[in-house]
Amino acid sequence: MTLPASPLSPGSALRALRERRPLVQCITNAVVTGFTANALLALGASPAMVDLPGEAGPFSAVADAVLVNLGTPTAEQRDAAREAVAGRPRWVLDPVAVGVLPLRTRLAEELLRARPTIIRGNASEILAVATGVKAGRGVDADGATAEMTGVAASLALSTRAVVAVTGAIDHVSDGTRTFAIANGHPLLARITGSGCTATALVGAFLGAGLPALDATAAALVLSGVACERAARGEPGPGTFQVRFLDALASISPKELAAGAKISRA
Amino acid sequence: MTLPASPLSPGSALRALRERRPLVQCITNAVVTGFTANALLALGASPAMVDLPGEAGPFSAVADAVLVNLGTPTAEQRDAAREAVAGRPRWVLDPVAVGVLPLRTRLAEELLRARPTIIRGNASEILAVATGVKAGRGVDADGATAEMTGVAASLALSTRAVVAVTGAIDHVSDGTRTFAIANGHPLLARITGSGCTATALVGAFLGAGLPALDATAAALVLSGVACERAARGEPGPGTFQVRFLDALASISPKELAAGAKISRA
Amino acid sequence: MTLPASPLSPGSALRALRERRPLVQCITNAVVTGFTANALLALGASPAMVDLPGEAGPFSAVADAVLVNLGTPTAEQRDAAREAVAGRPRWVLDPVAVGVLPLRTRLAEELLRARPTIIRGNASEILAVATGVKAGRGVDADGATAEMTGVAASLALSTRAVVAVTGAIDHVSDGTRTFAIANGHPLLARITGSGCTATALVGAFLGAGLPALDATAAALVLSGVACERAARGEPGPGTFQVRFLDALASISPKELAAGAKISRA
Repeated sequence: MTLPASPLSPGSALRALRERRPLVQCITNAVVTGFTANALLALGASPAMVDLPGEAGPFSAVADAVLVNLGTPTAEQRDAAREAVAGRPRWVLDPVAVGVLPLRTRLAEELLRARPTIIRGNASEILAVATGVKAGRGVDADGATAEMTGVAASLALSTRAVVAVTGAIDHVSDGTRTFAIANGHPLLARITGSGCTATALVGAFLGAGLPALDATAAALVLSGVACERAARGEPGPGTFQVRFLDALASISPKELAAGAKISRA
Repeated sequence: MTLPASPLSPGSALRALRERRPLVQCITNAVVTGFTANALLALGASPAMVDLPGEAGPFSAVADAVLVNLGTPTAEQRDAAREAVAGRPRWVLDPVAVGVLPLRTRLAEELLRARPTIIRGNASEILAVATGVKAGRGVDADGATAEMTGVAASLALSTRAVVAVTGAIDHVSDGTRTFAIANGHPLLARITGSGCTATALVGAFLGAGLPALDATAAALVLSGVACERAARGEPGPGTFQVRFLDALASISPKELAAGAKISRA
Repeated sequence: MTLPASPLSPGSALRALRERRPLVQCITNAVVTGFTANALLALGASPAMVDLPGEAGPFSAVADAVLVNLGTPTAEQRDAAREAVAGRPRWVLDPVAVGVLPLRTRLAEELLRARPTIIRGNASEILAVATGVKAGRGVDADGATAEMTGVAASLALSTRAVVAVTGAIDHVSDGTRTFAIANGHPLLARITGSGCTATALVGAFLGAGLPALDATAAALVLSGVACERAARGEPGPGTFQVRFLDALASISPKELAAGAKISRA
């Protein structure tokens, strides 16, 4: 069942974002740095890759939102992340490979104390954050959907963050309400950092001043609708990536609202 | 008023660059590293991202020009930049976000003592370099054009560098002569690191052995003409970026000369 | 003379890779990080940029193959590379600019003791690795083909690695057998990191469980055939790069086998 516009209205959210042009501070991984900046610019946000200790802290005080992505957390980035969240800005955590790799798992535990506004990951990552232990290799990133909505809601309650678990179907929860988002396309898995990009879009909507649940839903719907548009005609992954950026710039609030496949989970 | 070919002849400059294939050492930021290398290769230069202490110094002695971009200056890059300019090569400074962020502001002050051949930034950055103080958030990067030509000329005189302030209209000054360049397209603002790319092109023309003023003007004209070509048909930002690289490779010296919109400022 | 499918069968190799979807750990340079990940995903492998000390070692124990590219070896990457190869995984070395730049030259010497499974470089780099001394600036990366087949075979014998020297024609040797691969296109030189990408593809085929000689030959043939396809119609370098990724995803095992230009050298 598709909900009416309220309480989650991706179209209005996109309109708000493009008017506000939020300044999004990005502490993100080396693989997607350029693509993330291009995606945010295409969308209408203003990215700033300020990820050095000594600069990240002061800058987070003026940024509209902060993205902390743990994909390739160098020593300088780890300190920058600590600085950036210390002042409790509105911030989004992307716990890339947490539960599998030790440095970032410890860092995620530490950063959680500074209360992320939103956490987005795949099933394996969210489970690792939720349980605080190594999730093991057996967790299928797309599977166990029914279980994951419970994990997401429970993690949202314990952290007071909005939690998003993305996969074939995305789930978003604030602990009380949980929604499923059925936008998206398998081609997205063929370009690198698609999850990282989704989290950056979440940061942009958060920076536009939207409530965390609305910001997260709008970003995931937009990511999915942009994918669907970019995937028309089944292009190769190089062409798909170019068209995805084009789509982020061209999708109108009306088209976004019309394309949204959100339902109560 | 468009000037005759001399003293600034972008067409001849491009011809010289493609014959020479200058080796351009790049110490640049994480967001644009790949795009910068691709832009330089497309243009006909030979990029080398040598940005580690212990390697940057020796390499700058053989490079035809050195680019120092302060976009994401890690500790290793800061030391590499110091090494690279210590021997006083022909080098270009891009003071990204100087005046706003502390680490790079101090670094820029230090590097200025090794006398950059050329400095390129937006109005806010050039003002910060010129005044040596925090420019504040109120400076509009595109505004205050009349004032900025004075600031550019004055900074050029005090540093003996050629100074370029880029925006809706670019201004280039050697302290004595100041030119306005009216090429360019608003779409350029929708891809990341467009200013950084322009500075890299400046480095390539400098490495081709051109006088600093001619190198700077040629690079900014080329950047603008390539944008105009890439923006035909109003593509999205992903497609625009791809076509911008194509344009850098395909624009002929004759087309560049014909498209140049240079005038005395 | 084109060989029959056996002993080098790129078509079967591609089929095996797409079935296995090997996990390829990449310790690679800042210029090509995103492009490498996208190329591996397009091909059907699973890239993981795990390049920090404390994580690189444990991860190399579970990765199907490890890529060590020395393009921009930060201090953290140098330690990560040491960790990653210490347990003697199946790994590929790309000695970027070894012989020219000091840090990576010393690092390559050290890493060689952990016995790479495959080494791929241009003539200058392979000569530097083989002789253990500065190759000098006079070595033409494409030239001295006859001499280089001898160098490759000799280096393969002394290191017990498969050695690939790439250029206008690629040569691959296990010390006993040496093959020439005549796929490829000059446009490849106009995009950054084409050699780095080829090495990443080598890593993917190695990770698929193929013998080192077969993996190397399959990767170089695929790189060449993908180039030929992407270069149809002589596009600019931006378009070429996009189509190269598309080609990696769309080339079938049959097309790969049909396009291979392998001969005894």
